[in-house]
Amino acid sequence: MDNASARPPNSAPAFMVYCPRCATPLVTRPVSDKLRRVCPACGYIHFTDPKVGVGVLVVHEGRVLLVRRAVRPEIGKWSIPAGFLDQGEDPQVTAVREAQEETGLQVTIDHLLDVYYTPPSGSGGASVFILYRATLVGGQLRPGDDADEAGFFRLDNLPELAFASTRDAIRRLGGNA
Amino acid sequence: MDNASARPPNSAPAFMVYCPRCATPLVTRPVSDKLRRVCPACGYIHFTDPKVGVGVLVVHEGRVLLVRRAVRPEIGKWSIPAGFLDQGEDPQVTAVREAQEETGLQVTIDHLLDVYYTPPSGSGGASVFILYRATLVGGQLRPGDDADEAGFFRLDNLPELAFASTRDAIRRLGGNA
Repeated sequence: MDNASARPPNSAPAFMVYCPRCATPLVTRPVSDKLRRVCPACGYIHFTDPKVGVGVLVVHEGRVLLVRRAVRPEIGKWSIPAGFLDQGEDPQVTAVREAQEETGLQVTIDHLLDVYYTPPSGSGGASVFILYRATLVGGQLRPGDDADEAGFFRLDNLPELAFASTRDAIRRLGGNA
Repeated sequence: MDNASARPPNSAPAFMVYCPRCATPLVTRPVSDKLRRVCPACGYIHFTDPKVGVGVLVVHEGRVLLVRRAVRPEIGKWSIPAGFLDQGEDPQVTAVREAQEETGLQVTIDHLLDVYYTPPSGSGGASVFILYRATLVGGQLRPGDDADEAGFFRLDNLPELAFASTRDAIRRLGGNA
């Protein structure tokens, strides 16, 4: 019933030294078939939830909406508007909000395009990326938040792209923009 | 640029009392437009990553694969095989592994079906659920892990279902099983 090769080495990150509930030094123990950081005093278990990104692919008059990243990773390269999803947030609401913060534009979600997986690299990026197709409905183009430029680009004249998920999403557009 | 109504009240969970890196009592401060728990001594910032579930919809000879939940929430009700995604894990690999652990069956992923959002209820369930369509390729039906029964059910003779995502996925199958 076990398939250890399909798992990460462990789910016990080294930065978790002390119990966030009671400050007791944590220990590493198997919990639910994985090594996890647990508190021997109060019973706290540290479950490592994934870093999730959400973003929108917006095409308007044959051009795709991109932002230039002002932050690491991939600083200076261009990506689709995107951001991290916090616990409890609706991915669609967060994707729309991130687009508005990074571009000044209002968009509405059309449908889910795909879910991408990126193995952890230590760069702090998302390991899961949820991508929606969205439509421009208003606003004024103005970069903000984690972006220092924003604009619409023709598919045959793209700037340097940041992430495999962005490149894949744009490649899929092909002649269908 | 701000849309506070679309956000959770804050991202500063009360259980985070002490810094997991250095055991200093944490304080609540705005970071990246949200209230977060941060360490005034070492600079640690607690980002609240979402709880993500992954699962598979498997239909074989017109019957859908379901498991009876042996754990909370929704204990005793039936759902599709699913489990939590840990940081760094590939959602497709984890979905296949959870199916194998809960049913004894080997499946392969066909394609992404949908991403569901469930507002936090305090029950500890996933707020994001990634659902794949998958195909049975081998194994012997044997419940395990978080399931105490597993079986294939006709769409017109389903047991009591656990989650809105399971009900929605099965409803979509309609006559296409």
